[in-house]
Amino acid sequence: MKLSELSLLLERNGFSNQVEAKEDPDLVGVNTLGNAGRGELSFLTNPKYREQLWETRASAAIVELEEPAPDGLPVLRCDNPYGAVAAAIKLIHGTRIHPAWGRDPRAIVAESARIGEGANIGPYVYIDEEVVIGHHATLYPGCYIGRGAILGDHVTCYPNVVIYDGSRLGSRVTLHAGTVVGEDGLGYAKVNDRWEKIPQAGWAVIEDDVEMGANCCIDRATLGQTVVGAGTKFSDAVVIGHGTQVGKHGMFVAQTGLAGSVTVGENVTMGGQVGVAGHLSIGDNVVIGAKSGVWSDIPADERYFGSPAFKWKQFWKQVAAVQKLPELIRKLHRLEAEVAALRKERRGDD
Amino acid sequence: MKLSELSLLLERNGFSNQVEAKEDPDLVGVNTLGNAGRGELSFLTNPKYREQLWETRASAAIVELEEPAPDGLPVLRCDNPYGAVAAAIKLIHGTRIHPAWGRDPRAIVAESARIGEGANIGPYVYIDEEVVIGHHATLYPGCYIGRGAILGDHVTCYPNVVIYDGSRLGSRVTLHAGTVVGEDGLGYAKVNDRWEKIPQAGWAVIEDDVEMGANCCIDRATLGQTVVGAGTKFSDAVVIGHGTQVGKHGMFVAQTGLAGSVTVGENVTMGGQVGVAGHLSIGDNVVIGAKSGVWSDIPADERYFGSPAFKWKQFWKQVAAVQKLPELIRKLHRLEAEVAALRKERRGDD
Amino acid sequence: MKLSELSLLLERNGFSNQVEAKEDPDLVGVNTLGNAGRGELSFLTNPKYREQLWETRASAAIVELEEPAPDGLPVLRCDNPYGAVAAAIKLIHGTRIHPAWGRDPRAIVAESARIGEGANIGPYVYIDEEVVIGHHATLYPGCYIGRGAILGDHVTCYPNVVIYDGSRLGSRVTLHAGTVVGEDGLGYAKVNDRWEKIPQAGWAVIEDDVEMGANCCIDRATLGQTVVGAGTKFSDAVVIGHGTQVGKHGMFVAQTGLAGSVTVGENVTMGGQVGVAGHLSIGDNVVIGAKSGVWSDIPADERYFGSPAFKWKQFWKQVAAVQKLPELIRKLHRLEAEVAALRKERRGDD
Repeated sequence: MKLSELSLLLERNGFSNQVEAKEDPDLVGVNTLGNAGRGELSFLTNPKYREQLWETRASAAIVELEEPAPDGLPVLRCDNPYGAVAAAIKLIHGTRIHPAWGRDPRAIVAESARIGEGANIGPYVYIDEEVVIGHHATLYPGCYIGRGAILGDHVTCYPNVVIYDGSRLGSRVTLHAGTVVGEDGLGYAKVNDRWEKIPQAGWAVIEDDVEMGANCCIDRATLGQTVVGAGTKFSDAVVIGHGTQVGKHGMFVAQTGLAGSVTVGENVTMGGQVGVAGHLSIGDNVVIGAKSGVWSDIPADERYFGSPAFKWKQFWKQVAAVQKLPELIRKLHRLEAEVAALRKERRGDD
Repeated sequence: MKLSELSLLLERNGFSNQVEAKEDPDLVGVNTLGNAGRGELSFLTNPKYREQLWETRASAAIVELEEPAPDGLPVLRCDNPYGAVAAAIKLIHGTRIHPAWGRDPRAIVAESARIGEGANIGPYVYIDEEVVIGHHATLYPGCYIGRGAILGDHVTCYPNVVIYDGSRLGSRVTLHAGTVVGEDGLGYAKVNDRWEKIPQAGWAVIEDDVEMGANCCIDRATLGQTVVGAGTKFSDAVVIGHGTQVGKHGMFVAQTGLAGSVTVGENVTMGGQVGVAGHLSIGDNVVIGAKSGVWSDIPADERYFGSPAFKWKQFWKQVAAVQKLPELIRKLHRLEAEVAALRKERRGDD
Repeated sequence: MKLSELSLLLERNGFSNQVEAKEDPDLVGVNTLGNAGRGELSFLTNPKYREQLWETRASAAIVELEEPAPDGLPVLRCDNPYGAVAAAIKLIHGTRIHPAWGRDPRAIVAESARIGEGANIGPYVYIDEEVVIGHHATLYPGCYIGRGAILGDHVTCYPNVVIYDGSRLGSRVTLHAGTVVGEDGLGYAKVNDRWEKIPQAGWAVIEDDVEMGANCCIDRATLGQTVVGAGTKFSDAVVIGHGTQVGKHGMFVAQTGLAGSVTVGENVTMGGQVGVAGHLSIGDNVVIGAKSGVWSDIPADERYFGSPAFKWKQFWKQVAAVQKLPELIRKLHRLEAEVAALRKERRGDD
């Protein structure tokens, strides 16, 4: 694909752009500034790599509108270079093509299950009674879909995904290998010094356009539903407790865990390994730094960090203050000595 | 089910209770105070939701003996409302009914394996040589049971559970999807600058009535056994290192990890994302707050929190003190200036 | 096996040693000092257990060259007792013998896949088109190998391991149950307030002699490759982000997570539950304590600890200082009062 063609296709995809180039290179791939070679398109979206723009061997680069660039390098300027790169990768590399199983005879589909047109069901898949699967859904080998679960159109479950009975997945949901939806949450009551199981009578709902990484765990609710809102994206090994409600368009990095009955607003970002205690409320547009431990509600539009989590600036101020502590202790001791001396002198005066 | 019937059944289950109601409503489900509608039973077990008792649309509620309740709301009073709710959910909603596979012909069962009466073995299950499986065990599709493993009566393994060779599961053990028992622990010795594997020659034991969430990992021991004690409950993605011994009736929230050779007493509670370093000893009845990092033994009956973990009160005192630090630093500087001024004046006097 | 035979075999394996014993006991197993009984070999490699050497019922023990030992106990002295124990366990207990499936007819192998000699492919394995599998590889039931993936000789994948399309595993790689290699990383761009997927066009490389525990997740790169270097060992539930490069001979304890585009040098040790933020660089021979959160580069040969992580000593100094804080605050208040008193007296003088 020529750079000029790419420019045109990006334009059509809603990324208005302008090309600055003396030539019109052929582009066969996309790569990072450091790794790109001849024939590859690169990009500058993280200022940390700015210097590499001047040394790259890429044949072209996507950059911001005002970004200074070396003379010889053909650039495509755009006000959302990150989005344009995403589109360029799709245009140049394409996306994964699933194996075409149709309805593999080695899959087991219960009689009462309803499977949409164009569904692509791999071998060793198990679909239980009363399941409904939408059009053009793809289930890789080893997936299990429990009784009465409902999966929307264009759902993709990679190998060994497990959907418990009664779970509901919207359209275009993508779950990576080993992810589990709808397992029982940690619900027990102490009766005569034993943990007595509280049947988990609710279910789990994964709304449209959610994507989850590998080995995530989404508990079903004790009563009612656990929800992961439309358009939200999880990385690997994220755990969501029973009855928790995650809003739309969130972004959770790997190994983050929410306890039960948490309410999370829309557009919330959580770094990796964040933990949120039960029954809390996290407002819209909140950003929580990686490894934070949250033990209190967070109002909308705040940025929090630390364990226990505080406002972002306050956290780093505390970190800086703690670093000064050993010196502080020395100062305090010096001061105590000085005051004692003053007092002694003072007494001497009397 | 009428409220009066429920009262009777709870009584028979050991929950003595008294009903205060002008009518005897029909109950078709259990739900939270906020979500319950007509025909649903609700409950107040967490004081955080006390206000909701006055606004609920539930047809009845389980509450503590002395809990004030609105006039029109039929209530069932009980001294262990949490336990009564667990029983009520079981009575009204029932528990999961497993698909009835009997011994599915598409499961593979080695000749020397012994399978108990009434066992329910799904398709795509693999049972290796010399395995023993108890009566009425249920193995969902995709489970793997390694050579010589022993599973007790009424064990339930949800889809894609993996039990390595030689592991031992007691009766009524329940493992949710993707959980792995008996994999090799992280045992290597540095030999000539390489990590040389120490064969993991031990095994893992999961005692009676243990339940684990999805995607947990229980290492086998290097030598001897790793143990999870009877009645202990884990949420999702809990990891137990090789040779670690977890006592009876524990409760571990999701993503908690214990290194190897740890000894944990009975009735221990760990919040989510707790980490415990190797070779430590945690006493009976200990409670460890979520996200704590434990680097030293904890005596019985203590509550610990933080990373490194301290006694609960000490931890929160430290957190409060750290919050005051920036102000403290300002105070100290002011004091230094004052003392310097005093000293200067003093010198002026001489 | 007699102790004298073991001594000889260890010698041949490169562990020069000397036996101090009045008899030549038969050894049928290896066990810890506390658990060993008659006929078992034990060992002292962790000074924490030194006292147990004097009380063990073991029939012999491996110890360091200069270690004092009780009179009656036959000992085998060696300058690398840990390595010798690893070798002794292998010699006495042997290693796991995989079931011999050959090429099980219930495995699915695509026509264009090339399978090496002596490969051992269990039932319910799925091998997609253009896959290459080396000699003597063992794939347990439920493994999925995606299109074009390349696995080296003597690779072992335990049950339900998933290798995505295009991944590359070197020779002697061992992956425990439920581990996933090559799933899509968390790559999205905000376009019109939605998360638009950036196709993950790269792949994942696991070099020779890597071993991973259960339920690990290794993202494929967005572009280019994610790498886990030769000889590196992971425990369970470790997560590696897209484009991250882990060097050779590392050791990562369970539940550790690295974000994307991280570069880790050789011989790096990370404790459990460590988190490393994206785009950082960790030098050779670095040691990072358990539960640390790393937000800045770490130069070679350093030991870091804490969250945010500092140099090891600095971290513990800070922890000690924070413990003193409440007392410090009291002292400061006392000092303020004293200075105020001095100032008042001073004024009284004027």
